[in-house]
Amino acid sequence: MKMWGSRMSKPTDPLVERLNASASFDIRLADEDVVGSVAWAHALGRAGVLGSEDLNAILRGLSAIREEFADGRFKLAPTDEDVHTAVERRLTELIGPAAGKLHTGRSRNDQVATDFRLWIQHACSKLTAHVVDLLEAILTSAEAHLHAPMPGYTHLRQAQPVTWGHWMLSHSWAFGRDVERLAQASASASCLPLGSGALAGTSVPVDRASLAGELGFHAVSDNSLDAVSDRDFVASFLFACALLGVHISRLSEALILFSSVEFGFVELDEAFTTGSSLMPHKVNPDPLELARGKAGRLIGNLTTLLTVLKGLPSAYDKDLQEDKEPAFDSVDTLTSVLPVLSGLVRSLRTDPAKMAAAISPEAFAVDAADYLVERGVPFREAHASVGKAMRLAGEKAMPPDRLTLEDWQSVDPRFDADILHVFDLATALERRNTKGGTSHRALEEQLAAARARLAELKVAKAG
Amino acid sequence: MKMWGSRMSKPTDPLVERLNASASFDIRLADEDVVGSVAWAHALGRAGVLGSEDLNAILRGLSAIREEFADGRFKLAPTDEDVHTAVERRLTELIGPAAGKLHTGRSRNDQVATDFRLWIQHACSKLTAHVVDLLEAILTSAEAHLHAPMPGYTHLRQAQPVTWGHWMLSHSWAFGRDVERLAQASASASCLPLGSGALAGTSVPVDRASLAGELGFHAVSDNSLDAVSDRDFVASFLFACALLGVHISRLSEALILFSSVEFGFVELDEAFTTGSSLMPHKVNPDPLELARGKAGRLIGNLTTLLTVLKGLPSAYDKDLQEDKEPAFDSVDTLTSVLPVLSGLVRSLRTDPAKMAAAISPEAFAVDAADYLVERGVPFREAHASVGKAMRLAGEKAMPPDRLTLEDWQSVDPRFDADILHVFDLATALERRNTKGGTSHRALEEQLAAARARLAELKVAKAG
Amino acid sequence: MKMWGSRMSKPTDPLVERLNASASFDIRLADEDVVGSVAWAHALGRAGVLGSEDLNAILRGLSAIREEFADGRFKLAPTDEDVHTAVERRLTELIGPAAGKLHTGRSRNDQVATDFRLWIQHACSKLTAHVVDLLEAILTSAEAHLHAPMPGYTHLRQAQPVTWGHWMLSHSWAFGRDVERLAQASASASCLPLGSGALAGTSVPVDRASLAGELGFHAVSDNSLDAVSDRDFVASFLFACALLGVHISRLSEALILFSSVEFGFVELDEAFTTGSSLMPHKVNPDPLELARGKAGRLIGNLTTLLTVLKGLPSAYDKDLQEDKEPAFDSVDTLTSVLPVLSGLVRSLRTDPAKMAAAISPEAFAVDAADYLVERGVPFREAHASVGKAMRLAGEKAMPPDRLTLEDWQSVDPRFDADILHVFDLATALERRNTKGGTSHRALEEQLAAARARLAELKVAKAG
Amino acid sequence: MKMWGSRMSKPTDPLVERLNASASFDIRLADEDVVGSVAWAHALGRAGVLGSEDLNAILRGLSAIREEFADGRFKLAPTDEDVHTAVERRLTELIGPAAGKLHTGRSRNDQVATDFRLWIQHACSKLTAHVVDLLEAILTSAEAHLHAPMPGYTHLRQAQPVTWGHWMLSHSWAFGRDVERLAQASASASCLPLGSGALAGTSVPVDRASLAGELGFHAVSDNSLDAVSDRDFVASFLFACALLGVHISRLSEALILFSSVEFGFVELDEAFTTGSSLMPHKVNPDPLELARGKAGRLIGNLTTLLTVLKGLPSAYDKDLQEDKEPAFDSVDTLTSVLPVLSGLVRSLRTDPAKMAAAISPEAFAVDAADYLVERGVPFREAHASVGKAMRLAGEKAMPPDRLTLEDWQSVDPRFDADILHVFDLATALERRNTKGGTSHRALEEQLAAARARLAELKVAKAG
Repeated sequence: MKMWGSRMSKPTDPLVERLNASASFDIRLADEDVVGSVAWAHALGRAGVLGSEDLNAILRGLSAIREEFADGRFKLAPTDEDVHTAVERRLTELIGPAAGKLHTGRSRNDQVATDFRLWIQHACSKLTAHVVDLLEAILTSAEAHLHAPMPGYTHLRQAQPVTWGHWMLSHSWAFGRDVERLAQASASASCLPLGSGALAGTSVPVDRASLAGELGFHAVSDNSLDAVSDRDFVASFLFACALLGVHISRLSEALILFSSVEFGFVELDEAFTTGSSLMPHKVNPDPLELARGKAGRLIGNLTTLLTVLKGLPSAYDKDLQEDKEPAFDSVDTLTSVLPVLSGLVRSLRTDPAKMAAAISPEAFAVDAADYLVERGVPFREAHASVGKAMRLAGEKAMPPDRLTLEDWQSVDPRFDADILHVFDLATALERRNTKGGTSHRALEEQLAAARARLAELKVAKAG
Repeated sequence: MKMWGSRMSKPTDPLVERLNASASFDIRLADEDVVGSVAWAHALGRAGVLGSEDLNAILRGLSAIREEFADGRFKLAPTDEDVHTAVERRLTELIGPAAGKLHTGRSRNDQVATDFRLWIQHACSKLTAHVVDLLEAILTSAEAHLHAPMPGYTHLRQAQPVTWGHWMLSHSWAFGRDVERLAQASASASCLPLGSGALAGTSVPVDRASLAGELGFHAVSDNSLDAVSDRDFVASFLFACALLGVHISRLSEALILFSSVEFGFVELDEAFTTGSSLMPHKVNPDPLELARGKAGRLIGNLTTLLTVLKGLPSAYDKDLQEDKEPAFDSVDTLTSVLPVLSGLVRSLRTDPAKMAAAISPEAFAVDAADYLVERGVPFREAHASVGKAMRLAGEKAMPPDRLTLEDWQSVDPRFDADILHVFDLATALERRNTKGGTSHRALEEQLAAARARLAELKVAKAG
Repeated sequence: MKMWGSRMSKPTDPLVERLNASASFDIRLADEDVVGSVAWAHALGRAGVLGSEDLNAILRGLSAIREEFADGRFKLAPTDEDVHTAVERRLTELIGPAAGKLHTGRSRNDQVATDFRLWIQHACSKLTAHVVDLLEAILTSAEAHLHAPMPGYTHLRQAQPVTWGHWMLSHSWAFGRDVERLAQASASASCLPLGSGALAGTSVPVDRASLAGELGFHAVSDNSLDAVSDRDFVASFLFACALLGVHISRLSEALILFSSVEFGFVELDEAFTTGSSLMPHKVNPDPLELARGKAGRLIGNLTTLLTVLKGLPSAYDKDLQEDKEPAFDSVDTLTSVLPVLSGLVRSLRTDPAKMAAAISPEAFAVDAADYLVERGVPFREAHASVGKAMRLAGEKAMPPDRLTLEDWQSVDPRFDADILHVFDLATALERRNTKGGTSHRALEEQLAAARARLAELKVAKAG
Repeated sequence: MKMWGSRMSKPTDPLVERLNASASFDIRLADEDVVGSVAWAHALGRAGVLGSEDLNAILRGLSAIREEFADGRFKLAPTDEDVHTAVERRLTELIGPAAGKLHTGRSRNDQVATDFRLWIQHACSKLTAHVVDLLEAILTSAEAHLHAPMPGYTHLRQAQPVTWGHWMLSHSWAFGRDVERLAQASASASCLPLGSGALAGTSVPVDRASLAGELGFHAVSDNSLDAVSDRDFVASFLFACALLGVHISRLSEALILFSSVEFGFVELDEAFTTGSSLMPHKVNPDPLELARGKAGRLIGNLTTLLTVLKGLPSAYDKDLQEDKEPAFDSVDTLTSVLPVLSGLVRSLRTDPAKMAAAISPEAFAVDAADYLVERGVPFREAHASVGKAMRLAGEKAMPPDRLTLEDWQSVDPRFDADILHVFDLATALERRNTKGGTSHRALEEQLAAARARLAELKVAKAG
């Protein structure tokens, strides 16, 4: 069945039908399409366009179709151009010509926008739940070794000591922002286009505010042309997915490094590794590599949509059909990656001893500079003196904590015997005691804040 | 001057210095850098790290530097690696070694993040003002011809009649969403990283909440590692710019078409056109074409940043220096395009007579179907009958409003003599009377809503 | 069956298996995988590693598997990790443990690179055939109306008269370059990685040159590390697809415009249009809009791969598995779009009368300037004088061919009575007689050159 | 000076002038513009359109302008819209009204395409020289430690032993392919558009073949519409740059890892590192990080251009002006990165002892499997047995070369006493003796091939 055709004097070319058909993928909107149609039927009823007999038949039919979808019994017909056609075709089979009244005052243009906005809102909820689960895994890991010292890196070079908890928590804030972005994308999707017709509004006096309420939308579109052509909500969603993917790639990269034999800070559970077809010894971090690589795909999906949208002139152009597959793919990608990452983090074994042992004495250089600063030396001079001491240690091929007092004083006479105390790990960590720092207090406050934030997110998700 | 170097036993390669140097572009952060340094100096003073004499000297020096920047008197030295180095170098020249105390407990990592977050917030304000101005131009044009009929298009084919006001307003809602996205980007930038040191926090007991208040940040970063490596705010900003660029490209494309001799709906003021070096008659819509093309650039800038961020492992990697130029370029691009577009819209001459005359009688086909629906015919049947009538008109090579009653009844006997009344333009527009539609009431309500929204945006901007 | 696992002390997490599994999509490499395995079996035989009995069993089994794939009888097992595993698993079912000898000296790393390089070469051939078919359609259309005048546009404003043939041929050269790029991508894929093992070469003394010959590769990889990690050939392919997509989008955009009622130069055959679910009169150019939109997708696929590759450190990382789906999608996209476009071009009805009538007298402005140049006026002055004449015509609201001699002389006394002859269409077209121009001779030479080029491409394709 | 304007009844809006003006960046085409104009002047002379006096004046003026550009004496006037206008304006200043004859039969559309094609060809040469220099550095490093064993990685896990030379050479082949792509981009640019006018050809009977020869183009464009709108050569160039950037990012990532204290295989010369403003000990690989990050920018530039081109309808649209800045930026980026990378590679200190010591005994697992294969065990079984042995070693927390014969036989009785010999490094490397492998012979042949290839490239560059 086609929703059009009597206008044409000849059949559509079969290759065009294939190119044009979207049912193979937009069938994923089936539930949203039926739900939207139920609401539309009610609205037509309230507007006096559908009599109660027709209304009841349509509702009965739609209910049956929804079950068929839920059970996997629904069968696409070869002629079903898209999900909307499929539903109307099936409704006609079930209830006869009355089905033909459902599309009164409605167009596929406002219908698909409504379906897709519902779907994106559901997708945001689903992805949020996955990110929340990952956050729980991260916070659990952070808490387990909140104060376990490890080398902190900048430029992949040891910088200053931090702790495992500190490092793990750093990722939690990034993923927390992703939850916010998903909420923003969901909010931008929550505006009802239904009742906009093909582009110019509908002549049926439906109550759009009630429709919105029934379907859970928080707003009603203000302009029918904009309503059928606006895909900002998809772009916002794909952007949220892309940046989430970037965060996943950064955590993954770090875990690949930290679980290598060269770093050795953590060990991946074997359930989260794979092997080699040729090399019998291999225990590879494939899930982390895939997680890292998927960022490329998520960025590509965003590029796709933005490029599709660029330069489109009028209310609805068929190019807009290209909005769905990138969104479906981004959801599928994240839905497969996020639970794996959560499981991997949960089963990660950290090696606090190795992490602590790996900290280079050079990583206390700031503390050595602070030593002079506390003795009144301007920081820039202190920095220079410690730099020279570090160079001296390098020339002597010894770690800086092995320099003698004479060595220290040879570069700056203001160093005193207690300079050697700056290499104390616990002290160094405690000294950074402002918000976001590495002291016990700062870390415990941070963990508490992260837990509180997570609790909020879970409430919001439930709400 | 370098902020480092004593550690090294040899000078940096000159080509490395050139690659590494960012002063040529990050000098744009100069004002933010000085403002941030003033706040940091106060914080050091309150923390007891800077005595009042040093503090006053530093504040005096910074104030002088700020003026030098404002006046364009500030001169970069060849050795200034970046804006931070330039400011500290100049401060040293002005006040001597006390300048070396300013960087105590601070790193360029938290400093540049602070500067850039301030800058992005300013950029959001600036772009918002430009979008608001464009919105004013759009609303003025919409109001001027609010009810002037014009063909509405889908698939660049005449679909149903709309009005100039309706069409213009459709763009206003898109740009309104851009303002929201800029506000979100600005909010995401409004979190203070200062006090995070290089990656691990600062040992100076600064009061970060006061610092945030002084600099106008709404939040304080929770984790020092995240604070120096988070570039989500830049990505959000570049995304907002890219989607704004897409909206600009869509409006531009439509105006290029509508101002062509083939459409003829509007005429561009000559001040917003250019000519040809070869063809003396040309009056080209170059600004609109550039505006359309710039979307590519804005999308490319977003791709750049997301790709740079992908897979970065540690707290701060130098790759992050690649965050600034795309942001600067996106701001410059939009700052040059938006005012031109506003001026162009303001000076646009619409031709209501041509627009009305261009409306094809085919564009009343939905009204013809509604005619049958109102007589109890299921919409799907009504659609088929009207489709046949349209085909018949095509075969007869006449517009459908020239079909006779016999013609209509030959395709469906349920058509009656009054079918010919459906081609009345005013009636057709009035019939679509729900929110977002084309009736007088709906359009006036929409315009009022758009004006109210604009007023809100202007208050928010001022606030 | 897994190709690994004995190393592990616990089973892989089911979610990891799902994330990791590529069989659902890389099954498309089945034929290439079997063909590659046949060649490898021969190579092992020649190297003395496989006895003739085992070799024959393996070849028999692979032949059976190839048939199963061809017939659609091959069934993936839930445990088949990828196509390589599936083939080895099935081979084991068919011939027993001897199947376990096939993977000697080979890794999935060099195997998949081999398979994929074969597949890309096939894909290039296939796409080339589709482009060649489109070129035939274009040349046929160009020839049919080679000298039919139409307005030529720059900036979507009438510029100078051209002809339909000229315009159509302009697209043929772009698509001709696409064929060259596909050939370059294919050539870059034609380098054999097999024999590189996992990363470090193979200890089996296979003759790689013979292997290459047997599989039709033109070169043998020089370095085993590079062989397993190089994906340049995929990037080159995706780039060729993206630019082909851009060309398709440009032709599509133009045909959407030219087939609109506002331009009216061509009419799309109804078989290449679709209708509206709401608006019974609509005849929409959906295939052209989809063709235009798909450029976004093809560009996104290229972005995906380049971003995946960025920053990958070692020989083979699992991120590389993300190379296939973009390539499959780009091929599927173009395979569905190109034949539709060819059919659409073949069935296009041009309207020479309308095209000729649409040419504005302003489009002869260059000829008017040339008129003065031929009388010794420097071009820049001539341009200025004609510009003034055009302005005068505008002020008088008349086309410039209606200006009187007095009018012309009022802007420049060097105009004489014969100035009015410059508005002759045939003369104007004939005047541009250099290569690539619009004269009869130039167009016929161009068509002949395009035909010759197409013949070359067809020979190359066949060869 | 403007090249147009008499047509207009009012001046261009100043903001439009600023948006429209490209002189600030396309001034980089100055030399190409003058060279192209010289050739055009000669062509006009040969065509009899320019008398010898005018011709000589023009040539004299252009020669002076070229010198002004070369000396840096050329000053842009505020009214210079673009480089073409600037040159014509200056020519007018120098030689008077005769300058106005130069643009006869030419348009900025064919002129800028000619200039840019020349510029891209020059850029390809320049970048090729930089890549060739990098290749020399790589080959020198490879040769210096051709047979020095190091761990080979897949999935960033030790896989099998390779050598430094092998690893370094792997990058040489990737960069060698970049040179080919640059050559292809240059070839695609080498097609003369001049003589195509604005879109429709030129009425001046210039000999385009001679023009091409004079300017060094290998072909003449076949179609004037295509000639002014084709930007494939820019896209090909940006693609070549992007993939070159990806290769740079991969080498950089590896060197960042290998030069970390955790890997310790190489040491960066201090001249190729930078320090920290806060942490006195830091020696950071900033140039490598910037080199890695720049890939994002180069990919973004490609995305920009492809997106700009998408959907452009007509011969020349002003959007095409957006082609230049991405190309300029990509060239500047690579021109600053490549020499630094070459210098860094040249000054790299490898630590053969550390690399050899780092090789894990697990990396001989394939050799252990080969051991069984050589004794007639099917590879798949051999793989399983060795996998079990590796697991056993893991459980015993000992490296596999410490397993006893009893241990080996407990997993597979077919292991014999000589199994312990498989851990011999030299033997393992020598066993992989096919083309591209790690044996002495294979490596020496590979180095010779790489040297031969480099010599070819240098000849080609010189030629």
